[in-house]
Amino acid sequence: MGDCLKYSIQCSKCRSEIELREWVWKHTECNGTLNIEFKGLENIRFSNILRKEYNDIRRYMELLPVKQEYVPKIPVGGTPLAKRHLGANVYFKMDYLNPSGSFKDRGAYITLAKVKELGCQEIIEDSSGNAGIAFSLLARTAGIKANIYIPKKAPEGKKRFLKLLGANVVEVEGSREDVNKEALKAERKGKGVYVGHWWNPFFIEGLKTIAYELWEQLGEKIDYIFTPVGSGGLFLGIFKGFLELKNMGAIPTIPKLVAVQAQGYCSLCEKLGLSYETKERSKLADGIMILKPPRLSEIINAIRETEGFCVVVSDKEIVLALKELINMGFIVEPTSATAYAAFKKSFSEKLVGESSNVVIVLTGSGLKVLDKLNSVIFRSNL
Amino acid sequence: MGDCLKYSIQCSKCRSEIELREWVWKHTECNGTLNIEFKGLENIRFSNILRKEYNDIRRYMELLPVKQEYVPKIPVGGTPLAKRHLGANVYFKMDYLNPSGSFKDRGAYITLAKVKELGCQEIIEDSSGNAGIAFSLLARTAGIKANIYIPKKAPEGKKRFLKLLGANVVEVEGSREDVNKEALKAERKGKGVYVGHWWNPFFIEGLKTIAYELWEQLGEKIDYIFTPVGSGGLFLGIFKGFLELKNMGAIPTIPKLVAVQAQGYCSLCEKLGLSYETKERSKLADGIMILKPPRLSEIINAIRETEGFCVVVSDKEIVLALKELINMGFIVEPTSATAYAAFKKSFSEKLVGESSNVVIVLTGSGLKVLDKLNSVIFRSNL
Repeated sequence: MGDCLKYSIQCSKCRSEIELREWVWKHTECNGTLNIEFKGLENIRFSNILRKEYNDIRRYMELLPVKQEYVPKIPVGGTPLAKRHLGANVYFKMDYLNPSGSFKDRGAYITLAKVKELGCQEIIEDSSGNAGIAFSLLARTAGIKANIYIPKKAPEGKKRFLKLLGANVVEVEGSREDVNKEALKAERKGKGVYVGHWWNPFFIEGLKTIAYELWEQLGEKIDYIFTPVGSGGLFLGIFKGFLELKNMGAIPTIPKLVAVQAQGYCSLCEKLGLSYETKERSKLADGIMILKPPRLSEIINAIRETEGFCVVVSDKEIVLALKELINMGFIVEPTSATAYAAFKKSFSEKLVGESSNVVIVLTGSGLKVLDKLNSVIFRSNL
Repeated sequence: MGDCLKYSIQCSKCRSEIELREWVWKHTECNGTLNIEFKGLENIRFSNILRKEYNDIRRYMELLPVKQEYVPKIPVGGTPLAKRHLGANVYFKMDYLNPSGSFKDRGAYITLAKVKELGCQEIIEDSSGNAGIAFSLLARTAGIKANIYIPKKAPEGKKRFLKLLGANVVEVEGSREDVNKEALKAERKGKGVYVGHWWNPFFIEGLKTIAYELWEQLGEKIDYIFTPVGSGGLFLGIFKGFLELKNMGAIPTIPKLVAVQAQGYCSLCEKLGLSYETKERSKLADGIMILKPPRLSEIINAIRETEGFCVVVSDKEIVLALKELINMGFIVEPTSATAYAAFKKSFSEKLVGESSNVVIVLTGSGLKVLDKLNSVIFRSNL
């Protein structure tokens, strides 16, 4: 098993290079987020470095900053793509069909491989649910203890699931931000390394593999990619993956990336000076109820660089989209439906044309929250 | 899109050939089960007829008795395989990562394509849960109405899920056999075509694709395959897939097939004259609580022909196996754990040696029955 390509870790704020002697998740000197940069991509041909014996994330080990001997012992990624004609050519990336039921398995997989390589025994993660579940599941397969900080108001199904997976679950009253503060306090007290997916650059490295898979499944022809944006890890991961593909010469341009937020959690539109309704905050899109993502300016940059845009959807639009998704056979959670709702809106507003090839990333399984799905679908009269 | 290879439909009892003018699921004259036989396999090279543009069940369209224009619009199959060293080399086929959360999506997919091709509008299915869910999900994507007959005692999570998928759910008091009788009554009253997976040969055609995938993932090296056996569709599907691979010259011999049953539902061991404990019936393995599978003699034949065997596991063994599976990151339902429990037993009894390559098929997602998993895992002191 060969090592991956050479890479460096850089602070996005002061641009200094970080040497990885122990676990880091931000630049402690200037509080900047960290990013990983692979070297010499221009000399690499993507299709030549695939490990074709795998149909999962290990296929891309050459471009992942971890050693294969430390990866969790369960395959992640390699999820299907479903094509539908819905005005435009729509491709649903069924990333909810990962082992723990969400795309976050990819980020947790790479993070845990690095944590293990660095000899850490215990992790701390804060999550509205799916990331905590992904970390709990994969940590267990790696013999690492997971301490998961979640909001008290998170769906009961997700809490039960975390406990089933053997995680130490810490419920915190208050907002998503309060949960984050408690997790960081625990880290300072030495209760483990903080792997929070809002910051952690290794998480993004895992998520970028969605771009690689989309390239393998669809080649150059993607025009738009719609993703829910909470902390922006998924969005930035996909951007990074396509940027690397571009640097390797596999594609001439990166698809237009469309960031989807829920009503009341519109940090991007605010920053971009766009108008949006603020009457009430979403109660349904629990995976993306984040007011101030730490990587906000990086997300804005990715939208601008790809000539994408951002869309805010209401709970009413989410319910309608969720119903249609279930009718199409996609059992996903309400947060996933935001991306489809945003596509419908953009298509009806002619922001997206009929001949476009559009990818919609379906992020989380509805099986974990069947009660919630039932109440959303049956109690709404849409 | 070319047609598939030529095939015929035969009665397993009187050997007469059936012409498919309208939907059939058994030979009405003699009550025999039907089987589909492809012609000229000896002139085919398996690796040459794969539709390599697909990583799902459509990859095998040449060997599936349906037209591609009628298949449901959501990809099924192409599930991952996880390797673990557990005494022997164990490969877990993660078939619970199908769109509806179980391997039964494969059978429903092919059945519905045929139903649609024949112009039927409504199906009737009886199921302890997973098959009903698979049919409901895929029927909806095909614009077909699903009438699902289930036992009143089926897990609540599964019932809720069926309703969410828009199925007409009919709950029947009594045993699994009573449910079957009610479904057949409905068919006689003209309420739709009966697609019951205990009988329906198209269901088995879908399930045989697991064998194709295992061949692609592992080649010739499989020694044993452990599967839970209820009606035997999975077992016979895998047998048929490997038999076809053998007929195409892709493998010299079929792996030894191990049929796993739950305590109290031991039709196979009875028939084979083996000793087993009958003290109490399993309460956990709800997917395989079937006393008299209609294809019993076909299953016995497959065990004998592959030099396999059958194993009966207790609820205590199921709980222990389920705990270990969750520790390994496989969130499956108790029925899936029967196959792993049977492997553990067979390995400790030295029926399976250390150098063996063993496949264990993980059949159903635990996400649908999280409450049940919680109560099974936390209330047991194993």
